[in-house]
Amino acid sequence: MHDTETELELKSEDLTLKLIEAQYALKDTRAKKNAKSLVVLVSGIELAGKGESVKQLREWVDPRYLRVKADPPHLMNTTTPFWQPYTRFIPAEGQMIILFGNWYSDLLATTLHVSKPFDETLFEAYTQQMQAFEQDLKNNHVDVVKVWFDLSWKSLQKRLDKMDVSEQRWHKLHGLDWRNKKQYDSLQRLRRKFTDDWLIIDCEDEQQRDHLFAEHVLKHLTNLPNHALKVRSKWHQAPVPEVLLQPSTEVLVEEDYKAELKKLTKQVAAALRVEGRKTVIVFEGMDAAGKGGAIKRIVKKLDPREYGIYNISAPEKYELARPYLWRFWNKLLDEENISIFDRSWYGRVLVERVEGFASDVQWKRAYDEINRFEKDLSDTQTVVVKFWLAISKDEQEARFKAREQTPHKRFKITNEDWRNRERWDDYLEAAADMLHRTNTAYAPWYVIATNDKYSARIQILRALLTQLKAE
Amino acid sequence: MHDTETELELKSEDLTLKLIEAQYALKDTRAKKNAKSLVVLVSGIELAGKGESVKQLREWVDPRYLRVKADPPHLMNTTTPFWQPYTRFIPAEGQMIILFGNWYSDLLATTLHVSKPFDETLFEAYTQQMQAFEQDLKNNHVDVVKVWFDLSWKSLQKRLDKMDVSEQRWHKLHGLDWRNKKQYDSLQRLRRKFTDDWLIIDCEDEQQRDHLFAEHVLKHLTNLPNHALKVRSKWHQAPVPEVLLQPSTEVLVEEDYKAELKKLTKQVAAALRVEGRKTVIVFEGMDAAGKGGAIKRIVKKLDPREYGIYNISAPEKYELARPYLWRFWNKLLDEENISIFDRSWYGRVLVERVEGFASDVQWKRAYDEINRFEKDLSDTQTVVVKFWLAISKDEQEARFKAREQTPHKRFKITNEDWRNRERWDDYLEAAADMLHRTNTAYAPWYVIATNDKYSARIQILRALLTQLKAE
Repeated sequence: MHDTETELELKSEDLTLKLIEAQYALKDTRAKKNAKSLVVLVSGIELAGKGESVKQLREWVDPRYLRVKADPPHLMNTTTPFWQPYTRFIPAEGQMIILFGNWYSDLLATTLHVSKPFDETLFEAYTQQMQAFEQDLKNNHVDVVKVWFDLSWKSLQKRLDKMDVSEQRWHKLHGLDWRNKKQYDSLQRLRRKFTDDWLIIDCEDEQQRDHLFAEHVLKHLTNLPNHALKVRSKWHQAPVPEVLLQPSTEVLVEEDYKAELKKLTKQVAAALRVEGRKTVIVFEGMDAAGKGGAIKRIVKKLDPREYGIYNISAPEKYELARPYLWRFWNKLLDEENISIFDRSWYGRVLVERVEGFASDVQWKRAYDEINRFEKDLSDTQTVVVKFWLAISKDEQEARFKAREQTPHKRFKITNEDWRNRERWDDYLEAAADMLHRTNTAYAPWYVIATNDKYSARIQILRALLTQLKAE
Repeated sequence: MHDTETELELKSEDLTLKLIEAQYALKDTRAKKNAKSLVVLVSGIELAGKGESVKQLREWVDPRYLRVKADPPHLMNTTTPFWQPYTRFIPAEGQMIILFGNWYSDLLATTLHVSKPFDETLFEAYTQQMQAFEQDLKNNHVDVVKVWFDLSWKSLQKRLDKMDVSEQRWHKLHGLDWRNKKQYDSLQRLRRKFTDDWLIIDCEDEQQRDHLFAEHVLKHLTNLPNHALKVRSKWHQAPVPEVLLQPSTEVLVEEDYKAELKKLTKQVAAALRVEGRKTVIVFEGMDAAGKGGAIKRIVKKLDPREYGIYNISAPEKYELARPYLWRFWNKLLDEENISIFDRSWYGRVLVERVEGFASDVQWKRAYDEINRFEKDLSDTQTVVVKFWLAISKDEQEARFKAREQTPHKRFKITNEDWRNRERWDDYLEAAADMLHRTNTAYAPWYVIATNDKYSARIQILRALLTQLKAE
C-alpha cells in the first residue's frame, strides 16, 4: 500500500496546489454567507513527528495564511475554564490556525502529571465538555479538526535512543516521561476515550504521515459550510411573566433607603471580597430601567482596583468575524475578581433577536451556548448573578422625558431609545424566553421591579448578598 | 479659596455637561485627521482618594465611553519591558481609559519593595524611558495625562486609623506599608523626581480633589490635536550602499551547501535554546529575495513549539486606530522564546513610506520609535537580529518568471509584485535610510546578498550564530 518516492513527489505537488487554492477559497469567505475558519488541534506521542508534519504543511501551503500557535501544556486548574488559554487564538472568518498544544494536551498532561495527579474520573467529564465547546465553535463557523500522531512504544524508544543531547533537553520540557512504559500505556488508554472524530495517524512512515495530515486538513478546508439560516422545529414562546408586565410599584421612603443602603453596600463589599473567588454580575433591562444607578451602588464601598465595569454596545467588525461569545471570553481573561456587565452576552437573545441582527438559528442556539459558558464560569469558582430590571412602559416614558429636560442627561436619550420603545412587546417576549431558558441553578436571574429606584436598588443589593453568601 | 457647597454643585453640573460633550467630540475624531485617544495615569498616596475621584469622574461622564483598568502593581523585572503589561489597554482613536495602576506605580512599588529592593539609580533611567515612551504615544495620537493624588503623612495616618478591618485587608494588597514613615518619605522623595507634566492634587479636601481631577481630564479631552502633516527640517537621504545596488553573485556549490547547512542548522538550534533568553529575528527585503526559504532553514532543527513565525501584511482597521507599533507589541506578549518576522515594523519606513501610506512626519519619526522599541527588547534579555536580503533587479525578474511557470508558486506572484518593481529605486532609498538609521549595536542589521540562494542561507545562519554567541 505504500507509495514510491516518485508517487509521493507527484502527490506533494498536487497537494500543495490544492491546499493553496483551498486557502484562498477560505480567505474569500470572510464576511460572506458561507464564512468559516479552521482550528486544527494537534496532539500525540512525543517524537511521532507532529512538529515535522506541521512544518511540512507550512511548506506546502501559503504560510501567510496559516498561523501556528504552540504552547507547552497549561496544567488544568479549578479556577480557569479549559478554553480560556486558547480563546484569543480562535481565528477570524477566513483564517486558519494550528493549535499545537491545546485543551486535549492540557487534559492529558494534567491527568498524567506525576507531581499533581488529576482525578481520572474527571477525564471523561472534561472530554464531554470539550466536545460541547467544539460543537459551539462549529455552530459559530469555526471548524475543528483533531489529529493524533501515534507511535508504538517500541518505535518511541528507538527514536529516543537516537536523539542527541540538546534535543533531549527540549523534549523533556513537555512534562511527561517518555521512557516510562506505564505512563505511555496510561496515555494510550486515555486517548482511546477520545471521540471518533479524531484522525489517528500511525507515524512509523514519515512521508505517509505528512501526507495523511495535510490531506485531512485539505478535506476540512475544502468542505465549506452551507450555513442553515432557518430552524425547522417549532418555537415555544415562554409566556411573559406578570412581573414583567406589571412591575410592582412598591415604594421605599428615602429615610429607610438611606439607612439600608449604608448597611448593605458595606456588606456587599465584604461579601465580594472573599478570596479565591470571582464574581460576574450581569445587568439587563429596558432603557432607563436603572442599570447604571444600581451598578453605582454595588461598587460604592469598593475601590476601582477591585472591579471592572463593561458597558456593552454593538460589536466591532473584527469581533463579528468570530464566534458570538468571543468578545466576552476575552473580557474575562484578566485577573479581575469582580466583573460587572452593563448589558452583556444576552444581547444575542434580546436586541439581536428583536432587531434581526441574529438569524433564527443563531439566537435560538444561543441559550444553550450561554448556559454552557456560564456553567464553565461557575465550575471555576466564579459566582454568576444576573439581574433583569423590570420597568413599566409608563415609567420609562416619564424617565425619558425627564432626561430630555436635564442638560447632562440629555445625552442618555436618543431617537433609537424611542424607536426601541415601539418594540416593547417584542422585547418582553425575548426577555421571557431568556428568563425561562437561562435561569439556572448555577447562574440565576433576579427580576427586580424598578419603577421605584430606591426599592429596586435595595432589592438588588439584597439579592446579590444572598447569592454571594449561598456560594 | 474654597467653594461653598452650592458653588460646588453648580460647578458639578457644568462639569458633567462639558465632560460629556468633550467625550462625544473625542469619539467623533475616530478615523479623522484630528483623531486622538486619551490615557489617564492615576497614582498617589493610599487613601488620598484616587478611587473616589475615579468613581466620581465615572459618574460625571458617559460611562459607556470611559474605560477604567486597575491592576495591582506588576513588580518590574529584567525580562519584561515596563510597557508590556499595559500595551493591550492603549485605547483606539476616539476612546479614553484610566490606568489606575500603571508603569509609574510599578516603578515606585518595585523601588520601594521590601523583600526585593530595586536599585534606586535605575529609577531615573526608567523615568526617562517612560517619558520617551509617552512621547511616542503622543506622537501617535494618544494623549497621556498624569495625576498624582497627594496626602500628608499626618492625614494618611488619621485616615488609616478610621478604616475598618475589611478595608484594611484590601489596602494592604498594594504592597507598601503605609504606617512606615521612612517608606512614605522615600516615596515622596522619589515621586518628586517625576517630570513636571504631572498634576499634583492635594487631597485634604475631597470635593476640591474630585473637581481638580475632572477638570484636568476635561482640559485634555477638549484639547484636540492638529496633527502636523509636514516636517520642516531637511531630510538627509543616506546614499544607497553598493551592496544593495550590486549584490554579490558569489556562488556556493550544492555539495558544500548541504554539508554546511547540516552543521549550521544544528548549531543555530542549540544557540537559540539558551535558557532565560529570547530572540527576535526580522526579515526584510524585496519580493522573492528568499525570506521564506531562509526562515525554513533557521527552524529546520527546531520544533514548532519552540518558535512563532509572523507573516506581516497590511494592518486591519482596529490596528490602524492605534499607535503604529501596537500590533507588534501585542505579538511579543506571549511566552514565546523565538519570534521570527517575515516583514515587520520596518514596513513603516519601507512600503508605507514608498507608497505614501504614512505621512512624512510619521515615517521620519519612526526610526527613533523603532530604535527605542528594539532597545527596550534588548534591555530585557531579547536578542534582536535583522536581515535585509539584497537581490538584484534582474534576479528578481528571473524568479518572478520562474514562479509564474510553477503551478504551486504562481500564487506567490501578483500584479502588485510587478508594480512594486517599478518603484525599485524608491525602495532601495528607503532601505538605505533604514539601514543607516536603525543599525544599532543592540539590534544590528545584516545585509545578505541573495542572488545565490545557497550562499545566502549559509551567510544568514552564520550571522545569526555569531550574533547569538556574542550576546
